[in-house]
Amino acid sequence: MAQLIDALFIKHFDNQLLNQRNDQALFTPPAGRLVISTDGHVISPLFFPGGDIGSLAVHGTINDVAMSGAKPLYLAAGFILEEGLPLADLEKIVISMAQASNKACVPIITGDTKVVERGKGDGVFITTTGIGVVADDIDISSERAEAGCKILVSGSLGDHGIAIMAGRENLQFETAIVSDSAALHGLVADMLAVAPNAIRCLRDPTRGGLATVLNELAQQSGVGMVIEEAKIPVKAEVKAACEILGLDPLFVANEGKLVCICEAAAAERLLNAMRQHPLGQDAAMIGEVITDTLCFVQMTTAFGGRRMVDWPVGEQLPRIC
Amino acid sequence: MAQLIDALFIKHFDNQLLNQRNDQALFTPPAGRLVISTDGHVISPLFFPGGDIGSLAVHGTINDVAMSGAKPLYLAAGFILEEGLPLADLEKIVISMAQASNKACVPIITGDTKVVERGKGDGVFITTTGIGVVADDIDISSERAEAGCKILVSGSLGDHGIAIMAGRENLQFETAIVSDSAALHGLVADMLAVAPNAIRCLRDPTRGGLATVLNELAQQSGVGMVIEEAKIPVKAEVKAACEILGLDPLFVANEGKLVCICEAAAAERLLNAMRQHPLGQDAAMIGEVITDTLCFVQMTTAFGGRRMVDWPVGEQLPRIC
Repeated sequence: MAQLIDALFIKHFDNQLLNQRNDQALFTPPAGRLVISTDGHVISPLFFPGGDIGSLAVHGTINDVAMSGAKPLYLAAGFILEEGLPLADLEKIVISMAQASNKACVPIITGDTKVVERGKGDGVFITTTGIGVVADDIDISSERAEAGCKILVSGSLGDHGIAIMAGRENLQFETAIVSDSAALHGLVADMLAVAPNAIRCLRDPTRGGLATVLNELAQQSGVGMVIEEAKIPVKAEVKAACEILGLDPLFVANEGKLVCICEAAAAERLLNAMRQHPLGQDAAMIGEVITDTLCFVQMTTAFGGRRMVDWPVGEQLPRIC
Repeated sequence: MAQLIDALFIKHFDNQLLNQRNDQALFTPPAGRLVISTDGHVISPLFFPGGDIGSLAVHGTINDVAMSGAKPLYLAAGFILEEGLPLADLEKIVISMAQASNKACVPIITGDTKVVERGKGDGVFITTTGIGVVADDIDISSERAEAGCKILVSGSLGDHGIAIMAGRENLQFETAIVSDSAALHGLVADMLAVAPNAIRCLRDPTRGGLATVLNELAQQSGVGMVIEEAKIPVKAEVKAACEILGLDPLFVANEGKLVCICEAAAAERLLNAMRQHPLGQDAAMIGEVITDTLCFVQMTTAFGGRRMVDWPVGEQLPRIC
């Protein structure tokens, strides 16, 4: 069994570094600062509209690396398999990982597999770790938002979370909602090309959605934020599904979107660059950073009022990534 | 809950890089080749004589990095928690990780936590990823064993596996057997200091034990090996426990031992250096590499005969690491 699994990985993740077959992979990074990010993936169900745990595990970690402004270089993958997982399912997942990694040009160069007894896991969990290199002049970090900065999002919110929930609840919507799972490093590279120094913060609003990311950034930067509901892109079918499920799209997970806080002077330039990228066509400027020692995130509603955008209470959608 | 857990990590893993609180950690590595290694830890029980899943997750990955001859620099840790895990247990594990990481001078600079429902995990799984830097003149790899090379082990075999099994089976031995879980990068550094170029292969014989490592190295290098049973250090109490449990110490897991294949001329020098290190006091030369296109590993038994040391059939000890 162990040999079967090894053979599966070697076959589909085929690359020179992995093929060294040591317990570690050796590589020579370009000079400069590196970033490392690690993310466990426990999504349920394993297969969903728009992807599966394999592609998600590749995209999620590439995005965490890219949100520092880094160019992702390599991935490592640790699998925890539950006894009884059909080998055909595992192969499907591995092929999907390989395709996502090839498309993104970020190879999986080392890995590990553990097997636990039936009932001690849930099919498969994948922990991916990514390494990237950051150009010298880039300084993107969660404490760099300042009053006057603009808040951009790269596209419509809530697609991933609603796709998963709809699958779980066996809801049938007229238009099938598909996860937005995608690797964002190309979009980030295009943004950096037009305004390398004006990007202050980048985050992918995964678990907890936009509301959580904005609250985290507000807190870490010691600022307030005001966003406008009317400007936040949410697909009509996602809005409808949220109403049925009693969810707020601001709290719903995304896997192919980013939030950018940038200097005001560069906002239009960045927005244009984003809209020219396939993953940023619906990019929008949704608000701005203000001075607020209480670090509140507020929203001007479509009706003209203002409400607080709070931290999520509890986890709205467990095992969404 | 999520905030509680985050606070726990920040408190105990306290270091400047982790405290950046981004989804990734930024660092500037020394120039040169790097290695990356990732390892999932699913050991059961979580606490055992001589360690717990936390210290093991630190030692295991440090060792995988060190087995390339690298100096380990940083760790990343991904936790998958099962709902219902007592917070006190988690804190014990996190403290133990922090202590192991501090002692080894290899900080945990980024991490992630996911929670799965009760019955979909088993307490906690920890996937650790390590990064290290390899000096220019070092070339240690699993295909570099050659006929004439000597085979060294750094100490007694089977301690970890037997400590875990004894705990699981509720066996009471007269002498308590304790896991050898330890970080080996200091020992490796001392070995490299006396013979930087003479070390061909390094491996830590974890899952599958010495027999598996030797078979893998023989296969990957295209050589045969002959080891001498009488020279293989196994503690009397481990030998006795193996007899009771029907196990062969050659197949039992270790978490603080290494196997070194080196050029014959440097073997004594390396052995002396190993014996002067606290983790190598019982180091021994146990055999040599021979020409054999079939890549067999053979053992001269204590009775003077010869037997094959085969690959393990199935997994002797599930969830041992």
